[in-house]
Formats: sequence, structure tokens, C-alpha cells
Amino acid sequence: MITRFEVPFADRLFARVRQLESRLVVGIDPVLDRLPASISSAEPESALVAFGRGILEAVEGVAAAVKPQAAYFERYGWRGWRALEAICADACARGIPVILDAKRGDIGSTAAAYAAGLLGDDPDTVGPSVDALTVNPYLGSDALEPFLARVGQGRGLFVLARTSNPGGAELQGHGPAGCPLYLEVARAVADWNRGSLGETGFGSVGLVAGATYPEELGRIRAVAPQAPLLIPGIGAQGGDPREIAAAFDGEGLGAVVNSSRGIIFAFDQRSDLPWQDAVRDAALATRDRIGAALKPVS
Amino acid sequence: MITRFEVPFADRLFARVRQLESRLVVGIDPVLDRLPASISSAEPESALVAFGRGILEAVEGVAAAVKPQAAYFERYGWRGWRALEAICADACARGIPVILDAKRGDIGSTAAAYAAGLLGDDPDTVGPSVDALTVNPYLGSDALEPFLARVGQGRGLFVLARTSNPGGAELQGHGPAGCPLYLEVARAVADWNRGSLGETGFGSVGLVAGATYPEELGRIRAVAPQAPLLIPGIGAQGGDPREIAAAFDGEGLGAVVNSSRGIIFAFDQRSDLPWQDAVRDAALATRDRIGAALKPVS
Repeated sequence: MITRFEVPFADRLFARVRQLESRLVVGIDPVLDRLPASISSAEPESALVAFGRGILEAVEGVAAAVKPQAAYFERYGWRGWRALEAICADACARGIPVILDAKRGDIGSTAAAYAAGLLGDDPDTVGPSVDALTVNPYLGSDALEPFLARVGQGRGLFVLARTSNPGGAELQGHGPAGCPLYLEVARAVADWNRGSLGETGFGSVGLVAGATYPEELGRIRAVAPQAPLLIPGIGAQGGDPREIAAAFDGEGLGAVVNSSRGIIFAFDQRSDLPWQDAVRDAALATRDRIGAALKPVS
Repeated sequence: MITRFEVPFADRLFARVRQLESRLVVGIDPVLDRLPASISSAEPESALVAFGRGILEAVEGVAAAVKPQAAYFERYGWRGWRALEAICADACARGIPVILDAKRGDIGSTAAAYAAGLLGDDPDTVGPSVDALTVNPYLGSDALEPFLARVGQGRGLFVLARTSNPGGAELQGHGPAGCPLYLEVARAVADWNRGSLGETGFGSVGLVAGATYPEELGRIRAVAPQAPLLIPGIGAQGGDPREIAAAFDGEGLGAVVNSSRGIIFAFDQRSDLPWQDAVRDAALATRDRIGAALKPVS
């Protein structure tokens, strides 16, 4: 029997993209006072788990991956972490790849502790359920090594390059013209992927590049053509899927696109439907908007 | 009755520095297989808590603050987080300021969720016990706003400028000569402190500057004279306390210096003593080495 981690992360992700014809990542960003009425009366941890599982059920055949955001669980203390672990384990059991959005970054043995807890095999942690992790490159390549070591073990990384917020340019764009910081990050990622490309032609060290800055996204793609891109910023943040066509190769592979609030809270606008149906409808519509972006406008 | 958060963080920290004549921060970085024999037989969560409390008892009158490193708790899943919450609450009950080293950074409502969970008042989280948090500036100033909003509520921040690892220079030193990224961060912090200096003359938005790069530390101090500095990198990482005199003002205020492994695992080298005595001895010796660094060598 082949366990999932024997297949490189990028191959696993893009096999699912092909199978579902979906490049959609559904962000799981729960907020207790925005949950559906049928759930919100439970005590907080149960409500978080019920909501997360409800999202997984709703998007199971639609989402290429899910992206739980650690902050929205850490917000609720250790009970929030326990809920996160339950939701990730459930996604894993359903065969949905989990990209844990934690943006961790630290040095030496501290980075190794994060990698062990979030991308490791200890059954008392979220690690066994996590396919890929977002990481922050500010502390340099030696700080990323403990995370990179997990890539050879079937895990994936998405290194922050150009985030989707306006202020992202302040540090990420720092440097001489033609040499902004985010492109240095992309170049380093291109190097790390070299020599360990999967069957789909992509490495398992990816980059985060916001849909809200399509020009920067295009430059990142040019510098690191083998890096899977995780693209946030469509939906609530205003990015337009039609502007991100450059992220994909000729087969429509190479990137996945995240939407969180626009999908998981879609029931706010659809009181005519059961909440999970509203979520599923929004996921389908977003999947299709992304899919349409692949085709050149005639 | 004045609650501690009515006093700005910097004033609280430096009042304790004066009272104890100590600029030492003790990092709490537990690793299960390195715990004292008397503790290591307990189940993991109890062992973490017993070790953390033992450290607090040992350094209570010696440490200006303690710095639990989130990674070493997150490593052990939700039980690790529960242990972290217990240790921080215990430090708080003993009146020891807690600097939570989590290096968080994210955008918009996600950053707000981190700030609520780690620097908030919700009794189900670590927040009420945390005096200050380390944050990562890579996502820009808009991403730091939710954390900065807590500074007016008596909390402190330490923004990563120049970390203590060799690879830190790769991104942190990026930019034209005279304008490396870490100095841009320091300039931004200087601006944020302007207009909200405490009675000691310092603001509550600090910077992390490693002892291992004293020249950069001096430049950071020059650019942001009112920012408290958190200085890692002495002890196990090789930084020399004698090289960081520039971090302190004429009264010996303005910075605190962290040591983690060199103190909390000091019992490894001192089988002649009860483990807490070995920890206390190491803390006292480190406090004194830092104190000696303040005085000009004649």
C-alpha cells in the first residue's frame, strides 16, 4: 500500500486538480459569531468542529484543497487548536489535501519544533493530517531548512513572496529596481525545487502570490516556473480571477486559488437555502470563475 | 486598583529591570527528552507544565521577564498549547512579565485573530497572561496594525529586525547600501513609538536585534533610540554580552537580553545540584555577565 506521503506533494495536488477539474482552495477561517444559526448555539469548540466538518462535506467534490487558517483557531486557545486538529484529520480522512496556513518562521531548533509539530508524524499533533504549510521567509534560508527537509518526505511548502495586502509592497518590494525582495524569494524557491521535480513537472516548494497584484504574480511565475503557486486575494479581497491566467501552464496546472470568506460565509446572502448548499453553490461558482480564467479571451 | 495593563509595557518592564537590577530574559523552550529525570516520567503535558513552573520558581527573582517560545509547545499539539497557557498564567500570577515568542504575522482580519488570541482578554486563551508578543514584519505595516492597536492597551510588541542567525542577512540585509531592510523596519518602529513614550522615555513597540551581529544592533539602536530591544543570541548561539553595550542608555535601560538553553538546561552540566538550583545559578551568572557589559571597560 502506498501512503499518500510517498507521492510528492505537487503531484498529489495536481492529480486532484485534474481529477476534479478544480483549482479552488477553500479557506477555513471560522469566526464564532458568524456561524450558521444551527451551529452557533453549541459550545465554542464543538461549534468550530461542526462548522469545519460542514464545510468539508459541502466542498468535498469541489475543492482541490482546503486551507485552514491557524489564527482563527489559535484565537480560541487550546480548545481552538484541538478543533483545528479534528478538522484537519477529517479532511485527511476524506482525501482532501490540507494546506495549513500558519505562516510560521523561526530559526534553527525552533523552526525544527514547528516543522515537527505541523508537518510531522506525531499522532498527538496536527502534523499527520497536513499536506503543506505556509512559511514566512524573513529569517532566511537557514531558518527554512527544517521545513525544506520535510519536502523530501512528501510534504509541501508555500513560501510567502508577494502577499495580497497593499502594505505587502513595503518590505516585499524593497530593493533596487529589478531586484525586489519578493523576486529574491522566488529565485531561492526555484533553486530549492531544482533536481526534485515531480511527474507533473512541478516541485513541492511553492510560493504565495496574491491575485491582487497580477503584474508581480507574473514576474514571480517567470522566475520560478516550477513552483506551485498559492494565490489568495480573489473574492472578498477584490482580485479578479481573469488576471491570473499567467500562473497556469498549458494544461491548466501550476497554481491553486484560494477563497475563504466568500465561500464559507456564503449562507449570509442565501437564506433561501440550507447553509451547506449555499456554501457548495459558492464553491462551484468560484471554481468555474477560476476555470474560465484559464481560457484565453477571444 | 491599577491593573498591570494600565501601565505601558515598557514602563512595566523597565521598572522591573531597575527593581531586580536584571536585564535577563529567560527563554522557556522545553524539549520533552531533555527534561530533568524527576519530571520526565510524567505524561507529556504534565511534564511540560512541571518544567515550566520549575523554571519560573527558579528564576523568579532573577529574570526581568520570561520568554516562552510558542513552537516548543505547538510541537506537542493542543496539549502543548494548554501547557503554554498554564505556564504563562503562572508567570503572570508571580508578577513576571511574559514575552510570548510566536513571531506571528498575517494580514487584516487574520492578524486581528492572532492579536485577539495572543494579546487579548479572553480567559480561554493565553492572551490575559501575555505582556508582549514577537511579530514578523514581512507582510507590512497594515498587517501589523491589529497588533499595534494592543499597544495602547498596555501590551508590548517586539518586531523582528535583525535576527541572530547567519541567514538572517539574506532578506533582512536586502536593499541598497545604507538602506537595508532591517533599518527600514527600525525606522517604522521609531515612528510608531513617537508620541506614546512612557515615563521611562521608551515606547512599547520594541525590536528584535541579535547579539551575534553587534554592528547591526548598534545601527538599529541609532535609528530607533526609544524602542526597547529584545536581544537573543547570547549563550548557546555564541553572542558576547560585552558587545551589546550600545543597546543600553546611560541608566542601563532600553534592552533586555535573552538566554534560553544555556539556562533552562543548565542542570545537564551540574549533576551535583538539584536541577532548579543549577538553573538559578546559570540565571544569576548570566544576569551578572549582562550587567558587567553595561560598564565601560577601563
